[in-house]
Amino acid sequence: MKALADIDIVIVGLGLMGASLAGALRGKCRTVVGVGRREETVTTALERGWIDRGSANLTSCIDEADVVVLATPVRTIMEMLDSIAPILPSGTVVIDLGSTKGCITDRMARLPPHIQPLGGHPMCGREVSGIDAADPTLYQGCTFILTPLERTSPETLALGYELVEAVGAHPLILTPERHDRLVAVASHLPYLLACALVATAEKAGQEDPMVWKVCASGFRDSSRLAASEITMMLDILLTNRSAVLQMLEMCDKELHQLAELVASEDEEGLRAALTVCRERRRTMYTH
Amino acid sequence: MKALADIDIVIVGLGLMGASLAGALRGKCRTVVGVGRREETVTTALERGWIDRGSANLTSCIDEADVVVLATPVRTIMEMLDSIAPILPSGTVVIDLGSTKGCITDRMARLPPHIQPLGGHPMCGREVSGIDAADPTLYQGCTFILTPLERTSPETLALGYELVEAVGAHPLILTPERHDRLVAVASHLPYLLACALVATAEKAGQEDPMVWKVCASGFRDSSRLAASEITMMLDILLTNRSAVLQMLEMCDKELHQLAELVASEDEEGLRAALTVCRERRRTMYTH
Repeated sequence: MKALADIDIVIVGLGLMGASLAGALRGKCRTVVGVGRREETVTTALERGWIDRGSANLTSCIDEADVVVLATPVRTIMEMLDSIAPILPSGTVVIDLGSTKGCITDRMARLPPHIQPLGGHPMCGREVSGIDAADPTLYQGCTFILTPLERTSPETLALGYELVEAVGAHPLILTPERHDRLVAVASHLPYLLACALVATAEKAGQEDPMVWKVCASGFRDSSRLAASEITMMLDILLTNRSAVLQMLEMCDKELHQLAELVASEDEEGLRAALTVCRERRRTMYTH
Repeated sequence: MKALADIDIVIVGLGLMGASLAGALRGKCRTVVGVGRREETVTTALERGWIDRGSANLTSCIDEADVVVLATPVRTIMEMLDSIAPILPSGTVVIDLGSTKGCITDRMARLPPHIQPLGGHPMCGREVSGIDAADPTLYQGCTFILTPLERTSPETLALGYELVEAVGAHPLILTPERHDRLVAVASHLPYLLACALVATAEKAGQEDPMVWKVCASGFRDSSRLAASEITMMLDILLTNRSAVLQMLEMCDKELHQLAELVASEDEEGLRAALTVCRERRRTMYTH
């Protein structure tokens, strides 16, 4: 297998993740080709020097690809895997950046045997989206999860590693199932809590619009994820339903316990519960 | 009544809010005196030039005060109001910075008639605490709620306004009851959601500690408030129970609705619900 520097890579989807990856890989691969639905996105990527060539048409550039990276919302990735399967040249490595992995690797397992699939999920998503939010340094320091399939060769996995490290991220290998359980609590639950918070404030604001005036930095940070791109989040929630629902149920129990402690004025119990959370949060982050 | 520039002000509590206020008012009042429990905190405030004089003993400096600002957790403010009532000189203005207002203004109503009370709550709290986190620019641009009592004179309210504007904040007058309902959704609910999120991750992490490795910026922002100072938050939750429990119940309904939409794969219903949240969040903030 070729080294990263000798590889022609095609990145499909020039949104936040795809465009940032292109910018991070430009000059580190032989060529970086960007495929975007809209012509102006491709032009922007070219103008910023993030791609060597661009196209609105995947099929026209797939022939020359050693590696194809699918960087679109999850269900678009699933559809693309089916549609490109017949035209991918033998030996092509297909990597995706989708936010859930089980449904994608299931679909990858159906690719023709001469294709090498590898699931990927860089943990550097943001609530902003599109090429305007893209940044070639986005991946630096983030955890980049790789979910190899049984059929993924050691060479393909090694190339995945090389790519992850080339953009400054830390590779972490997980099974798709474990990935999906973990991100349900680390990422999908926080999103739904942010939405429930905003929805509650919306209701309270209908009774008293002054609520928006007293929202400060706490509300701002807690609600940030509610601004995430809807199509991406719908795909995530609907392709990771069972893990998401399980985490929602666990969280609901925690909320009820806190409510019960407040309602019964159990000061020592409440202090103990809040202290566990505070200590954990302070171990994780300094801000 | 004297103008702010002619006033001797005593600030009790040199934590995040009190020390920042002292630093913001120094030079704008005739003298700023800081009262802190610990000698080293008082020394720090002196060294930073945030106070003219400091003391560990409130009673020793109360005689010379035109204005006393109580900047401690809520229940300490309530106790202090009782203990300083007999020794406050006639005409003293007492302002507090407590995070809930109903219980404090109830207590203020019992002060001797020659004292002028005014409730206050600057909406610039943070999850960090103590004088090390203090910053004289903390109040700039924030909403500073004032909750006058029936007995609060127009002159006292005008002085409150002058003080708020002197530190760069925007005054907002509310009744204590309305304040408490509003901050329950804008501030106390986000705190409890952050705690429930961390508690859920803690449980999930007991099964698979890898959860901490996949937490990224979304989890970091959503959980930030869980790091808040416990004594302060206990006081808040226990003195604003009914509004807090009402907001928790409203939020619980929203979470159940979202869970139901996910469980039933009602894509259009889910898209509509998430879109309302996204649009609201994007109207409120740009980041």
